[in-house]
Amino acid sequence: MERIKVGLLGATGAVGQRFVQLLENHPWFQIKELAASENSAGKRYGDICNWKLSTPIPDVIKNLIVKNSMPDLSCQIVFSGLNVKVAGEIEMEFAKAGYPVISNARNYRMEPDVPLLIPEVNPDHVQLIEAQKINRNFKSGFIVTNPNCSTIPLAMVLAPLDKKFGVEKVLVTTLQAISGAGYPGLASLDILDNVIPFIKGEEDKIETETIKILGQLNNNKVTPASIVISAQVNRVPVLDGHLMSVSVKLNNDFEIDEIKQLLAGYSAVPQQINLPSAPDKPIIVKNENDRPQPRLDRYAGNGMSIVVGRIRHCRVLDLKFSILGHNTIRGAAGAALLNAELLKTLGFFS
Amino acid sequence: MERIKVGLLGATGAVGQRFVQLLENHPWFQIKELAASENSAGKRYGDICNWKLSTPIPDVIKNLIVKNSMPDLSCQIVFSGLNVKVAGEIEMEFAKAGYPVISNARNYRMEPDVPLLIPEVNPDHVQLIEAQKINRNFKSGFIVTNPNCSTIPLAMVLAPLDKKFGVEKVLVTTLQAISGAGYPGLASLDILDNVIPFIKGEEDKIETETIKILGQLNNNKVTPASIVISAQVNRVPVLDGHLMSVSVKLNNDFEIDEIKQLLAGYSAVPQQINLPSAPDKPIIVKNENDRPQPRLDRYAGNGMSIVVGRIRHCRVLDLKFSILGHNTIRGAAGAALLNAELLKTLGFFS
Amino acid sequence: MERIKVGLLGATGAVGQRFVQLLENHPWFQIKELAASENSAGKRYGDICNWKLSTPIPDVIKNLIVKNSMPDLSCQIVFSGLNVKVAGEIEMEFAKAGYPVISNARNYRMEPDVPLLIPEVNPDHVQLIEAQKINRNFKSGFIVTNPNCSTIPLAMVLAPLDKKFGVEKVLVTTLQAISGAGYPGLASLDILDNVIPFIKGEEDKIETETIKILGQLNNNKVTPASIVISAQVNRVPVLDGHLMSVSVKLNNDFEIDEIKQLLAGYSAVPQQINLPSAPDKPIIVKNENDRPQPRLDRYAGNGMSIVVGRIRHCRVLDLKFSILGHNTIRGAAGAALLNAELLKTLGFFS
Amino acid sequence: MERIKVGLLGATGAVGQRFVQLLENHPWFQIKELAASENSAGKRYGDICNWKLSTPIPDVIKNLIVKNSMPDLSCQIVFSGLNVKVAGEIEMEFAKAGYPVISNARNYRMEPDVPLLIPEVNPDHVQLIEAQKINRNFKSGFIVTNPNCSTIPLAMVLAPLDKKFGVEKVLVTTLQAISGAGYPGLASLDILDNVIPFIKGEEDKIETETIKILGQLNNNKVTPASIVISAQVNRVPVLDGHLMSVSVKLNNDFEIDEIKQLLAGYSAVPQQINLPSAPDKPIIVKNENDRPQPRLDRYAGNGMSIVVGRIRHCRVLDLKFSILGHNTIRGAAGAALLNAELLKTLGFFS
Repeated sequence: MERIKVGLLGATGAVGQRFVQLLENHPWFQIKELAASENSAGKRYGDICNWKLSTPIPDVIKNLIVKNSMPDLSCQIVFSGLNVKVAGEIEMEFAKAGYPVISNARNYRMEPDVPLLIPEVNPDHVQLIEAQKINRNFKSGFIVTNPNCSTIPLAMVLAPLDKKFGVEKVLVTTLQAISGAGYPGLASLDILDNVIPFIKGEEDKIETETIKILGQLNNNKVTPASIVISAQVNRVPVLDGHLMSVSVKLNNDFEIDEIKQLLAGYSAVPQQINLPSAPDKPIIVKNENDRPQPRLDRYAGNGMSIVVGRIRHCRVLDLKFSILGHNTIRGAAGAALLNAELLKTLGFFS
Repeated sequence: MERIKVGLLGATGAVGQRFVQLLENHPWFQIKELAASENSAGKRYGDICNWKLSTPIPDVIKNLIVKNSMPDLSCQIVFSGLNVKVAGEIEMEFAKAGYPVISNARNYRMEPDVPLLIPEVNPDHVQLIEAQKINRNFKSGFIVTNPNCSTIPLAMVLAPLDKKFGVEKVLVTTLQAISGAGYPGLASLDILDNVIPFIKGEEDKIETETIKILGQLNNNKVTPASIVISAQVNRVPVLDGHLMSVSVKLNNDFEIDEIKQLLAGYSAVPQQINLPSAPDKPIIVKNENDRPQPRLDRYAGNGMSIVVGRIRHCRVLDLKFSILGHNTIRGAAGAALLNAELLKTLGFFS
Repeated sequence: MERIKVGLLGATGAVGQRFVQLLENHPWFQIKELAASENSAGKRYGDICNWKLSTPIPDVIKNLIVKNSMPDLSCQIVFSGLNVKVAGEIEMEFAKAGYPVISNARNYRMEPDVPLLIPEVNPDHVQLIEAQKINRNFKSGFIVTNPNCSTIPLAMVLAPLDKKFGVEKVLVTTLQAISGAGYPGLASLDILDNVIPFIKGEEDKIETETIKILGQLNNNKVTPASIVISAQVNRVPVLDGHLMSVSVKLNNDFEIDEIKQLLAGYSAVPQQINLPSAPDKPIIVKNENDRPQPRLDRYAGNGMSIVVGRIRHCRVLDLKFSILGHNTIRGAAGAALLNAELLKTLGFFS
Repeated sequence: MERIKVGLLGATGAVGQRFVQLLENHPWFQIKELAASENSAGKRYGDICNWKLSTPIPDVIKNLIVKNSMPDLSCQIVFSGLNVKVAGEIEMEFAKAGYPVISNARNYRMEPDVPLLIPEVNPDHVQLIEAQKINRNFKSGFIVTNPNCSTIPLAMVLAPLDKKFGVEKVLVTTLQAISGAGYPGLASLDILDNVIPFIKGEEDKIETETIKILGQLNNNKVTPASIVISAQVNRVPVLDGHLMSVSVKLNNDFEIDEIKQLLAGYSAVPQQINLPSAPDKPIIVKNENDRPQPRLDRYAGNGMSIVVGRIRHCRVLDLKFSILGHNTIRGAAGAALLNAELLKTLGFFS
């Protein structure tokens, strides 16, 4: 089978690098074009990319010449790891020009006609694409987004809970890795031997994106889930892996064991149709009392599984637990990749 | 004025070292005796103490000969930085032998006739000492304890909130420093580039100690406050300073500015009677959106102030904020020292 | 082909865990027996091993019952990740009982009749095994050791330099990862925001092991190389990967480019006979001026390549550069595994 | 006594903040003017300074209005914590305009007529000021510099060794703290769980500045010391405190105890004339085998003492040891302050 030719926007950034890494040897997709800012355009990727991953740059990628982020790339779809400042304009141009844009940027996430997609949670939201094309007069192009790196793990765990027991309220405190801030991101003087109890805009994203994802699709519109969420975020000196302490109020009675079985047994569309990047288990339940831990658990399911532990009763709400997700894999590049796999399977491009 | 002669139990441990540091040049107290385990007894403190603070061991202390932890020390009161495994027996022996025991250990904290004391919060609980002496047939001796290093900052912030608005429910997620585990404590391989979402017994301590401290004293008995608390604890790679993300449900209406003024203006007995270790401001309110931070704020008020920031509404409960306290100063040795200062002022020993 | 049945001594320790990880799916060897201390014997490995790696315990290993470290294991060879305190006695018993012992422990490294082996450097030293068997009256059993985790990278880089230019003097300052101290190893309170300029016995090992490895074999005796080495060691807050700053005095003239080509082109017996764990390039030369870095380069060649950078003239000696090696792979379990692969190929067991 | 009015150039940067901290309550100097870049000029220091120290900004400083870096400041001398990019021009303008400039920048360090001063080492080099004034047609103004943060500790230890035994060769490998790179300096993603074996220009500074400092002054010219120095530098994840592993070749025989006594007993002009910032002991010798350590020893002598440990023979050169100095105190702001104290005492300004 011929692989689909992929262009990568924001190719030199932290998320861009992760895309390059995850797309190496991908069975369906093949990077053909790399685009970045004007400074980088015209140069060899291997020469200008400040590569920060511990696996080497694939040789074929190293020699590609970086192009400008303009919609004349020779590829069938584009992945976007663009920075929020430029993503809005560039992604729109690509969509108008007919490219399916699979974006990790936040610019269009909350647009009513743009799917905010987690294939395990709301695959039906892809239907918004049709509305989007009509609204915006797109032909073959469109934009699909994945949620914020903290929202994804939270939404993936809330989804089965909500379906079975009804989630009413959620209090979440995050302990987020520094890679979530991109590169250069946090100054080392700010975070070594320290925690910063603030990430700009993050609490709002968690509170609003989650209820869009868990919302109901009716007549090409998403009605947000009626769940009240309150988030408090912290940045901790950890390289990768966002950990969260979560408390939840449910509408119906439950046993702790029921919760564990529900989460551990969770399986959804990506597992059923066997998407290449889908982990066997989207949620892994740990019974040890000191897990999940970012360094030990972030690569579970190749970084695509969410790990949940310390599931127990909460005196104030009903249920509490800890969640871990790899923020640059399941929370960013891997999320977009899984979205693309779902879209391809559903025939949104070929 | 002649200074009161102090004996220090558990002198070589992490809390013991902090006691030594804080008692150097204290206007009222003077270390005369150091006691530790049998291995150390008979040896020069400077030779056997694996000193871990960045200020040097005071010279007079360095040359003291460490004694066994037996109640024949030549001193008027003892501070205890003993380990939970041995504190129960040793502290009881000292109290029986007539020594006031100012303890940081948790063994007697929840005993009905033992004050669990924060001088800014429940100074009246010292009255339990009389009951204790009668119950236990003590003469001049008695035991007074300070709460857990996470409980103290939480209780100090809840106290004025509860008094003015009534606190109904509290959800707290902690990000605790490694020094809270003592020495050697956590293995570096466990915590570098990592977070551990578990500390044995800690959640229970926060949930139960807090309501004893905030409880009402009637007829020499403390009725626990009727506040429901749920804690989730995490250990982070930070040396000193416990940070907490807290959400609170209050019984009465409030404005954010009222809360800020209430906390920033908080002043209590230790400030009013000017105890030597009392900070000018027991609670410091920060308005910057990224504070408090452990490394920048842990030494506020010489490590005795609690720093609160990000005070804002909570969608799920009513109010949320971040709290920071220095865990080995205000949360341990400094807490005990302030207790001793209060007790001395009140005439419990001389 | 039937795989060789392997027993693993010290199976629960840090090096033991790395052996388990590296032997999963090995083409020639298969773990059949796990041995550890009495406390662990009789229990399921998955239940008692405090697993610290980010890849999961292989399922077949998880269910093995740990045995005592006594020479009645049902296997053809043993790997030893034993602690120095017990390795001396236990390894000798296994050798006497007829087991080839491939050891990472330091107890027998400097014995005249025990090979201190790096397959790329001194494969001919395996001939000591014959003398060893005669001296010690062994039948099929014997002991082969690999060098210390700092010595291996150093010796691998010195070997080609010595062969071509003659090495006269070496000054090496190490910056060693915390995993080199095993588990629990360093207390986090000792190493966070800190460096410790001392590791017990380490400088001596580097200075003496290196000249044995680079020594000449004559009449079943190794004459140490006449190189003078001075080492200064430091422990840094890095998880894995020992970095070294090295200065060298050579006997002959050289150009920097010659050195780079020599090292980059280095290939030896393991590469030529294609041993399964041998990296394509035993030495990788970096031209960027800020490499090698532990976090970015430690997994080069699956952790089996040594990475060298900043090759330049030294004003005091002749040549200076930085070296990096993964201390628990190339510096420990991977080193032993490569030794076993060489020995098997040479017919020392089957 | 009226205190000398001080202006501070580069007041908002990392070194500038340390100047502010060290000058609080200084007996001789008082900050009257703060200058910074145009962005900051006209604003309250407390509003625009991103303060990173754990002691609070002094209140009087907080309210000062930051000015432009132009020589119309109302003060008698200026301290410069300016960035290398702007220091050259601005410092020259201030000197021309008649201000004594006490600089931490590197721009003029190697100028033949500019003292590169360590009061304990080369106080006589202040005589270059006269030549400088003549050469450059300065009236009351002049420029005095302090060395690089790594050079200072090294030169301070080499000075007494050179005087007594003659130093011939020096090999030094540094392990430098992140604060040496200023703020924001290193990205946290680059240094967490990592070491970077490179700091731009640093090796050259160590190799050249040291021999100027240790050089002989003749006829208003410094002849560099004939010592050959080779430096290898590394950046480690430590907040403050540069550690170095040093090997030295001496011209004369020595005993280890002689070296220890020489260094421990070292006392120089600043100690003899009792300068306010001079530590009692410029060099502290540690006999424990695992010292100096950055976190435990960096505040020795209020950050102004150099701590030396592990003094022992070197097989390749003669002598080896580890050195630690606080890089932003003794290595930067504190160094400049001590220079100013010396100059004032010598009557270079009043």
